[in-house]
Amino acid sequence: MSVITLTTDFGSKDSFVGVMKGVMLKINRESTFVDITHQITPQNVGQAAYVIYSAFSYFPQGAVHLCVVDPGVGSSRSPVVLEAAGHYFVGPDNGIFTKIIRNFEPTAIHEIVNRDFMEPDVSSTFHGRDVFAPAAAWLSRGTVRLEEFGPAVKAPVTLDLPKQVRSAANLIEGSIIYIDGFGNAVTNITRSLLEEVEKNIQADGVEIALHAGVIKSILPNYSMAPDQNTICATIGSWNTLEVFLANGDAAGVFGLAVDDHVEVRYY
Amino acid sequence: MSVITLTTDFGSKDSFVGVMKGVMLKINRESTFVDITHQITPQNVGQAAYVIYSAFSYFPQGAVHLCVVDPGVGSSRSPVVLEAAGHYFVGPDNGIFTKIIRNFEPTAIHEIVNRDFMEPDVSSTFHGRDVFAPAAAWLSRGTVRLEEFGPAVKAPVTLDLPKQVRSAANLIEGSIIYIDGFGNAVTNITRSLLEEVEKNIQADGVEIALHAGVIKSILPNYSMAPDQNTICATIGSWNTLEVFLANGDAAGVFGLAVDDHVEVRYY
Amino acid sequence: MSVITLTTDFGSKDSFVGVMKGVMLKINRESTFVDITHQITPQNVGQAAYVIYSAFSYFPQGAVHLCVVDPGVGSSRSPVVLEAAGHYFVGPDNGIFTKIIRNFEPTAIHEIVNRDFMEPDVSSTFHGRDVFAPAAAWLSRGTVRLEEFGPAVKAPVTLDLPKQVRSAANLIEGSIIYIDGFGNAVTNITRSLLEEVEKNIQADGVEIALHAGVIKSILPNYSMAPDQNTICATIGSWNTLEVFLANGDAAGVFGLAVDDHVEVRYY
Repeated sequence: MSVITLTTDFGSKDSFVGVMKGVMLKINRESTFVDITHQITPQNVGQAAYVIYSAFSYFPQGAVHLCVVDPGVGSSRSPVVLEAAGHYFVGPDNGIFTKIIRNFEPTAIHEIVNRDFMEPDVSSTFHGRDVFAPAAAWLSRGTVRLEEFGPAVKAPVTLDLPKQVRSAANLIEGSIIYIDGFGNAVTNITRSLLEEVEKNIQADGVEIALHAGVIKSILPNYSMAPDQNTICATIGSWNTLEVFLANGDAAGVFGLAVDDHVEVRYY
Repeated sequence: MSVITLTTDFGSKDSFVGVMKGVMLKINRESTFVDITHQITPQNVGQAAYVIYSAFSYFPQGAVHLCVVDPGVGSSRSPVVLEAAGHYFVGPDNGIFTKIIRNFEPTAIHEIVNRDFMEPDVSSTFHGRDVFAPAAAWLSRGTVRLEEFGPAVKAPVTLDLPKQVRSAANLIEGSIIYIDGFGNAVTNITRSLLEEVEKNIQADGVEIALHAGVIKSILPNYSMAPDQNTICATIGSWNTLEVFLANGDAAGVFGLAVDDHVEVRYY
Repeated sequence: MSVITLTTDFGSKDSFVGVMKGVMLKINRESTFVDITHQITPQNVGQAAYVIYSAFSYFPQGAVHLCVVDPGVGSSRSPVVLEAAGHYFVGPDNGIFTKIIRNFEPTAIHEIVNRDFMEPDVSSTFHGRDVFAPAAAWLSRGTVRLEEFGPAVKAPVTLDLPKQVRSAANLIEGSIIYIDGFGNAVTNITRSLLEEVEKNIQADGVEIALHAGVIKSILPNYSMAPDQNTICATIGSWNTLEVFLANGDAAGVFGLAVDDHVEVRYY
């Protein structure tokens, strides 16, 4: 029960992340920390929502996922703990758990109000240290029930994240939701919807249309790219359609960006 | 006794930090490592002095803090171990522990000369690996007394770091001591001195003067900023006055830098 | 047996590294992870080969070194496990283990084909997560023999990495093999070959010739540099000749790069 992951926009320059781990070790000396990323674009709650959703299930059941992208720190937004899919999540109630809440049935979501589970002095600028880290560490001990943190949250905040739509029998519309560090552009068009469409219609081929041009196939892997200059598509590690350039930076070269429209048309 | 934190200017590109951890695991397989930061500005001993001081107390008592910003590696500067406030510190005697030494009464400071607690071959360029990491790991085992490392250090090196001064009944002068990764400018003007002045005088208001302009209040938190263009101040997570821009990069936008003069005037 | 190091070109922006650790914790809850680096230049297998070689021996015997720089992911290149010098190595058979294979006698090298030691669904784009991480975690448990992963590899891929050559009694030719984060230029000219030449001939002095100029001595350490503008040389932490600038960025200032020719001439 004591694996704790961390996802923040705190970067690696400052002591923020280290200090949160110190606070947690004081509460649970047996914590095992795994950094998912600290390079969420500052204050980009939506990006964090995707990253957590794509990563959490690779961790052991019972893991605690501490997620702090918190532009409203010190305001009236609530801190929350929630349980879904056998995992625990701790963070601000600002939509960071949108994808978890929409895709899994959380068994409980509770506000953190009980000061027994916070640092003695709660600053107004660093709830990662004073509220969220202690809550995660207490949860990781496995002896605190969610309702002990505070009252149930009836209507957690969710973001209006872009959806994939099957807008015709042979057409899926979606968008780029993430650019990874290699410059690959991850879309929200899932393998399962692609397979559903393929099963439904007898298609001869497929075209992926982006503002940067048209891609003529979905390759089985990166190394099937014909050369290092052709924009290509495959099913990436998020199990969604991904646009790439062999051993290159697709987003940089072709000017791809989050929210770009993507169409997949079978013919 | 086996939490070991690391604060260095080694960055994350090279294997330096990983190798230090390998050396420590050979000596104490039960070590739990927490990286505070490896992005101290290269050779900036003063910056490291502030970062360690602001972070160490969030870790469990008995933690060992390995601090390596060491422009004099290979020269005659001494390696030291010290104990203060129930924590252990290991690093070069070059002023990196200035804030620890000034603000706490170290119970002991010893030079590291005993080669039993070093790597068999001590290089002249990487004492982090060959001297400091082994000393930290031995300390973390809890079975070595500080005096076993070597003779007591009578006059450890301390830096002349900028001080806050109450230069009049209603006036505090200080300076910016750190710019964090978000662009917030941390000053050395403490909450406790601000509160002392507020208690002493019957003030109607407060003004914070920087070269970049005058700030008209100390806000309770970031989210009280009137808008995203106004330079603001609050008490930050170091428990000192901090200058910020709501969801923005105050240092970048207003050209704030370490050592900038800051005045807080009550009226 | 459960120290696992990680060396990749995955960077720190994405969840790739965290997800690999999650996968490993599911298999071996007792894993201790140490990141060597995730900032190998993307797809630079040769750079990774040097970094792993220079780092691995500082870890405890039995450590598992997970190395993923894998431009051929999804192609026919094999995944392998190997044992050498009492350590285990896991990664693609693309030359990443060249220096290990050439400098130590691997006791066994096996292809990973047994799907019992992979994630249930193996993607075509992220074998770090689906093939290499599980193999490393299974190895770290100490209960799986290398031959259980798959057939022995007779002729592992090795790269033609630049060699140092003693081209005359008083002359060593080599090259720059790595630029570290401080800008120091690490060469492949070893301390042991330098000492051998020094012992053989009665030299009055030494000259190191680079395209950037001639260095007139090998200093005992960084702090012996005469000033902060003179290009200098010492024996660095890789136990090879290293070119540096005191408290400065030698590679940046003098335009040093990997593969630059270096000559050491005794006279």
